[in-house]
Amino acid sequence: MKTIKFPEVSQWSVLSKRPSLTESEVNKTVSSILQDVLNEGDVALLELTETLDKCKLSNLQVSRKEFLAAKNKISQKLKTAIQTAFNNIEKFHLSQREVPQRIETTKGVFCWRKSIPIERVGLYIPGGLAPLFSTLLMLGIPAKIAGCKSIAICTPPNKKGDIDPAILYVASLLGIDEIYKVGGAQAIASLAYGTKTIQKVNKIFGPGNQFVTKAKEIVSSEGTAIDMPAGASEVLIIADEEANPEFIAADLLSQAEHGIDSQVVFVTDNINIINCVKHNISKQLLTLPRRDIITKALESTLFILFKSIEECFAFSNQYAPEHLIIALESYEKYVDMITNAGSVFLGQYACESAGDYASGTNHTLPTNAHAKSYSGVSLDSFMKKITFQTITIEGIQNLGPTIEILAEAEKLIAHKNAVTIRLNTINNEK
Amino acid sequence: MKTIKFPEVSQWSVLSKRPSLTESEVNKTVSSILQDVLNEGDVALLELTETLDKCKLSNLQVSRKEFLAAKNKISQKLKTAIQTAFNNIEKFHLSQREVPQRIETTKGVFCWRKSIPIERVGLYIPGGLAPLFSTLLMLGIPAKIAGCKSIAICTPPNKKGDIDPAILYVASLLGIDEIYKVGGAQAIASLAYGTKTIQKVNKIFGPGNQFVTKAKEIVSSEGTAIDMPAGASEVLIIADEEANPEFIAADLLSQAEHGIDSQVVFVTDNINIINCVKHNISKQLLTLPRRDIITKALESTLFILFKSIEECFAFSNQYAPEHLIIALESYEKYVDMITNAGSVFLGQYACESAGDYASGTNHTLPTNAHAKSYSGVSLDSFMKKITFQTITIEGIQNLGPTIEILAEAEKLIAHKNAVTIRLNTINNEK
Repeated sequence: MKTIKFPEVSQWSVLSKRPSLTESEVNKTVSSILQDVLNEGDVALLELTETLDKCKLSNLQVSRKEFLAAKNKISQKLKTAIQTAFNNIEKFHLSQREVPQRIETTKGVFCWRKSIPIERVGLYIPGGLAPLFSTLLMLGIPAKIAGCKSIAICTPPNKKGDIDPAILYVASLLGIDEIYKVGGAQAIASLAYGTKTIQKVNKIFGPGNQFVTKAKEIVSSEGTAIDMPAGASEVLIIADEEANPEFIAADLLSQAEHGIDSQVVFVTDNINIINCVKHNISKQLLTLPRRDIITKALESTLFILFKSIEECFAFSNQYAPEHLIIALESYEKYVDMITNAGSVFLGQYACESAGDYASGTNHTLPTNAHAKSYSGVSLDSFMKKITFQTITIEGIQNLGPTIEILAEAEKLIAHKNAVTIRLNTINNEK
Repeated sequence: MKTIKFPEVSQWSVLSKRPSLTESEVNKTVSSILQDVLNEGDVALLELTETLDKCKLSNLQVSRKEFLAAKNKISQKLKTAIQTAFNNIEKFHLSQREVPQRIETTKGVFCWRKSIPIERVGLYIPGGLAPLFSTLLMLGIPAKIAGCKSIAICTPPNKKGDIDPAILYVASLLGIDEIYKVGGAQAIASLAYGTKTIQKVNKIFGPGNQFVTKAKEIVSSEGTAIDMPAGASEVLIIADEEANPEFIAADLLSQAEHGIDSQVVFVTDNINIINCVKHNISKQLLTLPRRDIITKALESTLFILFKSIEECFAFSNQYAPEHLIIALESYEKYVDMITNAGSVFLGQYACESAGDYASGTNHTLPTNAHAKSYSGVSLDSFMKKITFQTITIEGIQNLGPTIEILAEAEKLIAHKNAVTIRLNTINNEK
């Protein structure tokens, strides 16, 4: 937990730097996995699952029986909590639907856009330390609202060949019955290239470790769309002396428990609150089961003291954090200063966990400063917008001469001709 | 101009295949150019412009004097046409602005999204056969409406070191004064990495040849956002026996004149119209200045006869064309069948040239079947959407227990703790 006092603006870019991965080894492993799946299909998936997940499968796809069994393994308490989160996420993503607007740009020239679902999407749900059924809620709900015709889920099985019942339960709630027991880069390969069992998809969503991330990067450069480039999870908190150091410590710790590469940054204009937050971190840490991971993550944590709250916001915009918590009572005064962030949490009670699980916003967000140019996952991510136009006889008479002049200036005479032929035909028919 | 009759569905994927580039040579050249610009900055840009564009520059940036001179070189007729196109494109893209909706998902939990401009964008405007000032309109207008703070244009100079006056004129109209005389992969490198003269950007837009495309692909995988993956331009026309073969021929020719790699496809349920269209193509071709390019492009043109108009639409959705022209009087009956296309032109008078120049829709569209998962450029392309949330004391009391249960089920106890600490504090203060 380093504390930096009053850094010069020239130092900000170094302070904003995320650790870079040593890539070449990952690149080689992932390329070879992708090639295997491309060449050998299901056989490669079964072999890789045996080697990497230590699990010998006879079937890649989850059976109806497994779905039914899962339902009984989930407590009523968890079912109710999942339903509450489901409703909030659904409500917020439903509000993102757009009503097509038909615009008459010139008399007789009508243009509009229509959102159309991406036909088939693949959702990657990581296994690893914990079953992330919340990620399935965050991806599955907008996919369903968008109207994607077919949705495939890939998630790694445990050593017994089972998928966590909470993931199966959420899939049932969503009405998704196509789940494959495949994880890692091989899952991304199967979704991008297709195998006998797994039909290829048009777009791949979901987080994962560095192998999954690299695989998504490669298949994306080959033409399969992906949700966004990925990196380690991040939070930046801005607070002043009036903020509650106990709350801030808890929020910093919740970010740190994601993994040893989690990026945790605290910025303020007050040195006392830095000391109080550090004290609270040490205290709270003792009770947390993931304290080993957290302690490692905290090694690179930055506490930065700036001269003013305005400077804190300027730095935050340069850092462009995935999660930005504004722990200020007077946040309304500052909210318009925010230009780069994935998702913003305003005030004392909007903790990051709320957005991670249940408030309604999506938790799949741009990391690694990509918030400067990318948005988080939303309803839009599962649709593409097609533009339409229609032109009446009056419309082509009004706009045609303009098109002719512009096409000629670009020396595209066949473009001009497509208008001229129409105008001549209209004139001859008069 | 091949004619294929009643192809089986199993053949459709072969018929939908676009020619693939022989990449390895391009890849090597582009990687070396990117590396040069990264290492040598402006010096590399000047050297590459001398070698590749045969132009020795002393200054990379267009001067105020050059802007002023350009204005006098444009005819009043062209200025008026540009203004008409400008107004229509502006009108359509203004209609894409969104009003933020604040949603209360649970009593006391408020979520909303806000569109915020990407701070600095780079627009690449190709030179080559003709000065594509229309592309500058299509990229510059939404960038301005979005409110991007800084906009840089790169475009290759001619051998005298000049930029086409129409491009400079359109830039002036847009209020963009930052234009650099750099083309090709070196332009993309300068926008992605930055040099002493050219400050790096957050996102790069614009079409280009295979070197530009490859450079965009590489810098995108390194973390600079790009508008979309690119490929050769395409049109697919669906017509029945009542369509006007003269119009269709003109539209197919206008697509073919873009370049020898243009993809031109005509599908119908009537063999007579195929013959009439072919006849009209031969006739119109004679008068076109780019007939050499067109003739080469037409070599790979497909005329496909299907059993019904419904089958034409099914094939078109699998092909996912950049431009789709529905040359049917009764287009309204079919319009909801369209699931994959970049931009759709409905009826006899909505020719592709209209959308290319002046009707108002954007002409930067997904090619190479990317229309299955990507949208064309729109106002959204120049913004990112940030989600916001705020939670009242009542809100955290209502939603907190749900978050605690979900976090615990995912074994993320620090996440749970961030809520518990808040709930305890509220209870203690009562």
